[in-house]
Amino acid sequence: MAETATVRPLPAGEVENWDYEADVVVVGFGIAGVCAAIEAAHSGADVLVLERTGGWGGAAAMSGGFIYLGGGTALQQKLGFEDTAENMEAFLTAALGPGVDKAKIHDYCHNSVEHFDWLVAHGVPFKEEFWGEPGYEPPADQGLMYSGGENAAPFKDLVPPAPRGHLAWTKDKKLGEKGGGYMLMEPLAAKADELGVRHEYDVRLRRLIVDDSGRVVGVAATRYGKPVQVRARRGVVLATGSFAYNHEMVLRFAPKIAGRPTATVEEHDGIGIQVAQALGADLAHMDATEVALVVDPQLVARGILVNGHGQRFVTEDTYAGRMGQAVLQDQDNKAYLVIDELALEEAMETQSSLSFLRVAPTWVAETVAELESDMGLPERTLQSTIDLYNHHAQQGSDPFLHKKSEWVKPIRTPLGAYDLRGYTGGFTLGGLRTDLDSRVLHVSGDPIPGLYAAGRVTSGICAGGYASGCSLGDGSFYGRRAGVSAAKQL
Amino acid sequence: MAETATVRPLPAGEVENWDYEADVVVVGFGIAGVCAAIEAAHSGADVLVLERTGGWGGAAAMSGGFIYLGGGTALQQKLGFEDTAENMEAFLTAALGPGVDKAKIHDYCHNSVEHFDWLVAHGVPFKEEFWGEPGYEPPADQGLMYSGGENAAPFKDLVPPAPRGHLAWTKDKKLGEKGGGYMLMEPLAAKADELGVRHEYDVRLRRLIVDDSGRVVGVAATRYGKPVQVRARRGVVLATGSFAYNHEMVLRFAPKIAGRPTATVEEHDGIGIQVAQALGADLAHMDATEVALVVDPQLVARGILVNGHGQRFVTEDTYAGRMGQAVLQDQDNKAYLVIDELALEEAMETQSSLSFLRVAPTWVAETVAELESDMGLPERTLQSTIDLYNHHAQQGSDPFLHKKSEWVKPIRTPLGAYDLRGYTGGFTLGGLRTDLDSRVLHVSGDPIPGLYAAGRVTSGICAGGYASGCSLGDGSFYGRRAGVSAAKQL
Repeated sequence: MAETATVRPLPAGEVENWDYEADVVVVGFGIAGVCAAIEAAHSGADVLVLERTGGWGGAAAMSGGFIYLGGGTALQQKLGFEDTAENMEAFLTAALGPGVDKAKIHDYCHNSVEHFDWLVAHGVPFKEEFWGEPGYEPPADQGLMYSGGENAAPFKDLVPPAPRGHLAWTKDKKLGEKGGGYMLMEPLAAKADELGVRHEYDVRLRRLIVDDSGRVVGVAATRYGKPVQVRARRGVVLATGSFAYNHEMVLRFAPKIAGRPTATVEEHDGIGIQVAQALGADLAHMDATEVALVVDPQLVARGILVNGHGQRFVTEDTYAGRMGQAVLQDQDNKAYLVIDELALEEAMETQSSLSFLRVAPTWVAETVAELESDMGLPERTLQSTIDLYNHHAQQGSDPFLHKKSEWVKPIRTPLGAYDLRGYTGGFTLGGLRTDLDSRVLHVSGDPIPGLYAAGRVTSGICAGGYASGCSLGDGSFYGRRAGVSAAKQL
Repeated sequence: MAETATVRPLPAGEVENWDYEADVVVVGFGIAGVCAAIEAAHSGADVLVLERTGGWGGAAAMSGGFIYLGGGTALQQKLGFEDTAENMEAFLTAALGPGVDKAKIHDYCHNSVEHFDWLVAHGVPFKEEFWGEPGYEPPADQGLMYSGGENAAPFKDLVPPAPRGHLAWTKDKKLGEKGGGYMLMEPLAAKADELGVRHEYDVRLRRLIVDDSGRVVGVAATRYGKPVQVRARRGVVLATGSFAYNHEMVLRFAPKIAGRPTATVEEHDGIGIQVAQALGADLAHMDATEVALVVDPQLVARGILVNGHGQRFVTEDTYAGRMGQAVLQDQDNKAYLVIDELALEEAMETQSSLSFLRVAPTWVAETVAELESDMGLPERTLQSTIDLYNHHAQQGSDPFLHKKSEWVKPIRTPLGAYDLRGYTGGFTLGGLRTDLDSRVLHVSGDPIPGLYAAGRVTSGICAGGYASGCSLGDGSFYGRRAGVSAAKQL
């Protein structure tokens, strides 16, 4: 068989010496990897983490640090929010679909309180403060926030809303120095160290090592180009992240996001997906993407978002990721924010975690007709949209898209518009198909012996939609499961 | 290794007797399979086709029979249409994207004239008559038609339009008795027979048979539940169709189309994709779907199509498949056709291949306000859309979506609307990744020795978009390639 590429499995019989050995070998030291390592160690396994870069962290440490948790976590309760696992499940099923893995969502929601407690017990702090304004992340270190559009149309009338974005506390760090993602990873990495988890850095996954029975028994890697062979006595956990930085894979599976990867790291090259595919692993939801619209939600809520035809298409007070998906997936990545001068001034006074508020509008005009013309929209299109919006706004409502009345005010003049075509980006959500024990499933439906995976190398709780905190959420949750499952295999 | 499912490869060493043998074994007797069989036979191979049903035909024989061809075919030339391979390539790249396989589209377009001639030489007739009205298919047996929105916005101003939907001629058959798809398959099946191609019916693919080197050397199948083992001395061609009828796969890869498969046959269960995945085959564009809006285009062009908010979103004189994709993918499968009484009467006088014209509107009303209210749309939304449309229509133009002026007339009263929410359906376009020689590619990028595929079991020339005739087009084209490639392997 031709061997021009390296993702094919390496037969264990061809391995002459093992450079390292452990019961459980975890590949990738981001959120899924660290949680797998901790739980495997708790289960009595000798654990080795292989990390491609020079340290722990992965995309998690660079992220905002939201974990999507609910069903009545201690933090939700202390801050006075009622929530149930059933409501969380109903919301996620509606918001992350269509096509969600129902068993995974059920499992995730009904074990969410325990998962919160586990994080706290493992040193992850959450500040007892709620942030209720629209935003990507809290402006400071508030610990709880709506992060998926729960309190906006169409969900607010379907399921009792509860905030579920739990943000790891930066605590004694200076604000802005380290984000919530770092504060999530730091205590977990310290805990792994305390439990005796070993790590090898600068080691890059190339192939899986498989014995005659088809069982995964190790990892073939390289360090500075030289081969490193690692034996896994019980199991291998893939926690190598998404394929957002593999341009060819993105073109083949999620072309709408091609050329605009964000909120991830370039180590996210899909290798973990490919080495498992080479063993017949199944995939799921390879087209699904998180898409951020990197514009301050405080600004968007006060204006109207229109597409390339000057039409409104998404309620402006919802989760910004929901707006981003609507723009990129349904509106051909064309969107403009129209806002009047008074609303803009009002937005400038708010607190924000983004610097977008300092950007001036692309166009400013004295009248709607002038703005419409400057924007290159056909005559009367924007005028028609604003007339309709204002007609309803005068009655304080938005029967069209159901923006909450607190944000509904007629658009006045003078006004301006932002061209948002360069402001979308994101990462991929599809990947290996796994079961509730984080076992990687073969296309036959059976688990592949010895192989586990979690985090964005897998298809997790998200199918089409997204809510901030779902990736750190299912990554940490199913990372733990992967560690437990792998350690059990004797 | 657990063997609860049957898609895993069967080692050749475990085969005790071969029930059948051939140089090239083709699995599936639809368009891709018959073309593979013919070319393999032409190349001197002894060919056996395995078909799951009781006869040749597949989805192709049930289809309308369009083949998307161009670049100056003999039929295009005789009917006075200029076309070039470059224009065809530019159109398909724009209309079938984003993320198209550029090499495949280039190859397909530059060999399209030869492919037309090959079909004619193999007995497929095309009537020298052009049908220029909007429609799914010609009302009678006309041989050429626009089938992808080439002459509508936004493409008509990007690339010189040419009709490329070539329809196999029903000729001496009674109209309505047999469609173009049947007339495409019948002569090709006869030609295969003439060339000595053998076939076995009622034989269902279960697994691929693989030798120690990883080469595919046969097919493990069943007939009425009993095992049938077939040896392929040179190669196996998978031509088993899409996964549109595998509900679990649809939920995992293309959930928007879940529950609405059409224009395909229930044999399209994805088995061909799965047996190759089990060998490490790569996939592409698993979310892509053809979506038909099964409403007469003669009617749609004369009205306005609005979404669940009463907004227009796609030009109403384009290819109906393009409208269908817009409705299902971007508009949450909600669409209404608003048309006035006079336009409806005019449409009723036209010729059509669909019976939709005999369906009465869901709602009729004397005024727009009344219709809007009956449809449950928020006050003034539809009114606002119609006011804007009529404002421009009075000037004979549609600067908003660029419907051609011949279809642009103000919407008058009385008027009505059709609820089109039940009128979308389609099939899946994603599948195995193959190269220009129809070799199935392993995730490493190398071909899997002995394995070839064509038709909807593969990802062909379509990524996100569609044009009628692309599936019979790339299925027949790359079916031929598969036959040639497989026969060459000695």
